[in-house]
Amino acid sequence: MADDAIVLVGKKPTMNYVLATTMPLMEGRRVVIKARGRAISKAVDIVEVVRRRFYQNANIEKISIGTEEGRVGTDGRPRSVSTIDIVIAPKK
Amino acid sequence: MADDAIVLVGKKPTMNYVLATTMPLMEGRRVVIKARGRAISKAVDIVEVVRRRFYQNANIEKISIGTEEGRVGTDGRPRSVSTIDIVIAPKK
Repeated sequence: MADDAIVLVGKKPTMNYVLATTMPLMEGRRVVIKARGRAISKAVDIVEVVRRRFYQNANIEKISIGTEEGRVGTDGRPRSVSTIDIVIAPKK
Repeated sequence: MADDAIVLVGKKPTMNYVLATTMPLMEGRRVVIKARGRAISKAVDIVEVVRRRFYQNANIEKISIGTEEGRVGTDGRPRSVSTIDIVIAPKK
């Protein structure tokens, strides 16, 4: 939805993303957590910490995985990278 | 189901798990790919390589995440670790 919050998982500490996810949930908004490559494991950690410790009244609505193509690696060749999107929302 | 193949993702090269997943699919069996912690990113890579290159006629039936508790870390404290289960099956 237009009002969904999007959290892009990168190299910051897990707790930064946990808080960035918890805040919109507390406002009743859905959050889409997006990660690529090695950050995928961190995205799962974030969702688990949020729904077990910070906002227990949350539902995982959808988990989808995919591949992003066309990024060029350091060797000049195109590289594919796996992606995950996890949608979490307040229970109704 | 009883006949489902289970692939536990660990430290071996990704391609080992890609082949371990592709073979049961070719026999018409469903495969459950399970990973913990940092191996979660690798589990997603495995599924993406399988369904894009080795067995395109596959469906992702379910993706679930969770937390496994009670493992004791090197500091003697109990640690939680995130988990993922990805169910992939031949299209009907």
